[in-house]
Amino acid sequence: MIEALSEIVGKSNVLTSPEDTKPYFTDWRRMYAAPAECVVRPASTDEVSRVVAQCAREGVAIVPQGGNTGLVGGSVPTGARREVVLSLSRMNRVRALDPLNDTITVEAGCVLAAVQQAAEGAGRLFPLSLAAEGSCQIGGNLSTNAGGVNVLRYGNAREQVLGLEVVLPDGRVWDGLRGLRKDNTGYDLKQLFLGAEGTLGIITAAVLRLYPRPTATATAWVAVESPQKAVELLAELRKHLGDRISAFELVSRECLDAVLAHRPETRDPLKERKPWYVLAEFGDSGAADSLRERVTDALESHEAVLAQSDEQSRQLWRIRESIPEAQFTNVKHDVSVPVSRTPELIERAGRALKAAFPESRPYVFGHVGDGNLHYNIGPESLLKRGAEVNRIVYDAVAALGGSISAEHGLGQLKREEVRQHKSAVELELMRTLKKALDPQGLMNPGKLL
Amino acid sequence: MIEALSEIVGKSNVLTSPEDTKPYFTDWRRMYAAPAECVVRPASTDEVSRVVAQCAREGVAIVPQGGNTGLVGGSVPTGARREVVLSLSRMNRVRALDPLNDTITVEAGCVLAAVQQAAEGAGRLFPLSLAAEGSCQIGGNLSTNAGGVNVLRYGNAREQVLGLEVVLPDGRVWDGLRGLRKDNTGYDLKQLFLGAEGTLGIITAAVLRLYPRPTATATAWVAVESPQKAVELLAELRKHLGDRISAFELVSRECLDAVLAHRPETRDPLKERKPWYVLAEFGDSGAADSLRERVTDALESHEAVLAQSDEQSRQLWRIRESIPEAQFTNVKHDVSVPVSRTPELIERAGRALKAAFPESRPYVFGHVGDGNLHYNIGPESLLKRGAEVNRIVYDAVAALGGSISAEHGLGQLKREEVRQHKSAVELELMRTLKKALDPQGLMNPGKLL
Repeated sequence: MIEALSEIVGKSNVLTSPEDTKPYFTDWRRMYAAPAECVVRPASTDEVSRVVAQCAREGVAIVPQGGNTGLVGGSVPTGARREVVLSLSRMNRVRALDPLNDTITVEAGCVLAAVQQAAEGAGRLFPLSLAAEGSCQIGGNLSTNAGGVNVLRYGNAREQVLGLEVVLPDGRVWDGLRGLRKDNTGYDLKQLFLGAEGTLGIITAAVLRLYPRPTATATAWVAVESPQKAVELLAELRKHLGDRISAFELVSRECLDAVLAHRPETRDPLKERKPWYVLAEFGDSGAADSLRERVTDALESHEAVLAQSDEQSRQLWRIRESIPEAQFTNVKHDVSVPVSRTPELIERAGRALKAAFPESRPYVFGHVGDGNLHYNIGPESLLKRGAEVNRIVYDAVAALGGSISAEHGLGQLKREEVRQHKSAVELELMRTLKKALDPQGLMNPGKLL
Repeated sequence: MIEALSEIVGKSNVLTSPEDTKPYFTDWRRMYAAPAECVVRPASTDEVSRVVAQCAREGVAIVPQGGNTGLVGGSVPTGARREVVLSLSRMNRVRALDPLNDTITVEAGCVLAAVQQAAEGAGRLFPLSLAAEGSCQIGGNLSTNAGGVNVLRYGNAREQVLGLEVVLPDGRVWDGLRGLRKDNTGYDLKQLFLGAEGTLGIITAAVLRLYPRPTATATAWVAVESPQKAVELLAELRKHLGDRISAFELVSRECLDAVLAHRPETRDPLKERKPWYVLAEFGDSGAADSLRERVTDALESHEAVLAQSDEQSRQLWRIRESIPEAQFTNVKHDVSVPVSRTPELIERAGRALKAAFPESRPYVFGHVGDGNLHYNIGPESLLKRGAEVNRIVYDAVAALGGSISAEHGLGQLKREEVRQHKSAVELELMRTLKKALDPQGLMNPGKLL
């Protein structure tokens, strides 16, 4: 096996020694670690195709891996069977950029930040943006349908894709690299592989949408009385500012306090203590003054700070971005409900948690504009009762028609739990797809399904 | 069979007499007509489910039908086997509207205009808009992934969907009616049924996105020297106006002349004759004056008319909307290429057609902002050589990486032709999906595949 793979990708691109393979076998949060036979690093679609065909012949399973920054153990081996980690890192070329079609064609191993930069170099915007953008790879972003802070305005990773190139579980290549905004010639096959966590095939390249770069931006930090007021503020702002709102993030006082304690250089943007805040970002074409004026008007009746410089804007965003590290050890959730029901979720889950664990402390923040909350429960001592905490939170989510994984996927972490939340028909449809496309079950086994 | 169906939906909702069934058995353009056993008109998801289960037991195929306004014969029987037309018309309730989540839940039989109106009643916008909106039904729009004039700004029908309810080919109901903007808990099953032309199941209801209503609109008619200049104008306008551009339609002088001749009440918006025009629509929040000022600035160096009233705007749009009827009898195409290559398509296909048919006259118009042209070839005498004309146009489309059906689907009209344009791998993937989800081949046979 090792020899056959070496012949395809070259000896130096088949890693077997523990010091070489370790980073590939362990997930980012160090929750999952298991060895595989090797790490293979093909440099082209053709090499991926031959590696996959070789594995299919030998019945060896494949774990596709991008930047390995996922949070659910989706990109590392499970150790349950013969597996190979297939790293896409060497496939990192920008194949084409078409400014008049507003598209960029990239290989799966391009780091997200590199895609953003290539777009910027052509005066365009690639809007997908998330904390791991300096190391995550676009293939992983697409395979997990990544979200991030700009979903409200631009949609999830799925919405950025016009075309895909995919190596199928038997090694055949599906070339669906079309740059079309309209194409109704049969089933939209790319949708199968987007968000499938590598369980149906390996995305090797994609044609992505680009957008005009906003020439004006504004950042506001707004105090609100409650999550309900935050949701109402969003509706009000959408009325006045339409799609100029690119991000709308909720931050609880508990989160702000944690950040102020953790990073002494940060400070409370407002003089008085408030229970809840919204961090909102706005973008527009035209002049910055004109946008700022409109935002000021729209926020007139609210207690708010509008960043007066790029540096001030960065300071406000630093608060939001520091929340995960400021209270790292707690029971984490990445859940979503309809936007209108986020207040009810916070209230309902908080009440049930208090009843079961009087010491519990919710750290609530996230993309409330998408109904997506990172609903994390401290203190650290609750970690050992994580399963019970999850149960309470997930029950509240289920009662409100929500999702237990809004943007992080299922991976190994939630593949069991999700069975509680899906109908028998839905689970069977998922299994039917898996069986039809990957009858041998070779693609990323033990993840998602 | 008739008796069993009558028991489910009531006798008056199983139509068998020729005068009752005729409109259901003939397509809108009268290109396809074939009888089926009956027309069955269920009023609820449960009734659809029972009808489908009954048909599955008897091995009778089902032709789902909405407003029957499709242009490719996708919603009428083929006559090749025992079939039943299942009309969704009676399932026309708006089930819910959630203003703070910006969603509306509708049944498949809702007429598109009724969905638009329900949204408007709540101060929201449902942006899908196309010529047949007064009679087409949302279930058909979703099953064909309809396009229309607002795709540039809001996307195709597919992009408007957050959740679906589907009756599967064996009669089971998949309830995927979620109103979530982010949900990464496994395969995104709704994508399977969107654009599948009823060949994998019957969409019975959907949760759709709503948007803020633009408070300001503007309409401009701009002369351009060539299609290339039109594409460059789009890039320029996107830079200055971003997503305020909601429609960007190309109109050739030939099309304008045809309209002026066909509808004597219309007039040339500009004094001088020009070879090409763009009709652009703009929308924004805020004051109309402010938008109009920005559009005027952006068009400063162009010969353009900006509508000064709603009536003037309607007059401009009437020109665009009258093109299909003004030159009805010609060889029609609904093709797309990357936006950047639309000029090349027009040039290339036009040249090849002139060489083969010196009398040929292209009527070029369409959604150039999406790379989607309705590329129609007159005179009428060429109709009998339609296959040869198609061949020339489709070869040019293929050479430019385009699609032979941008927004109308395949239906019966293009299901053979599409095989020339898809790789063996792609066709096999499509067949694999069909076989996995509809192993008996009962759903809308003879369409798409």
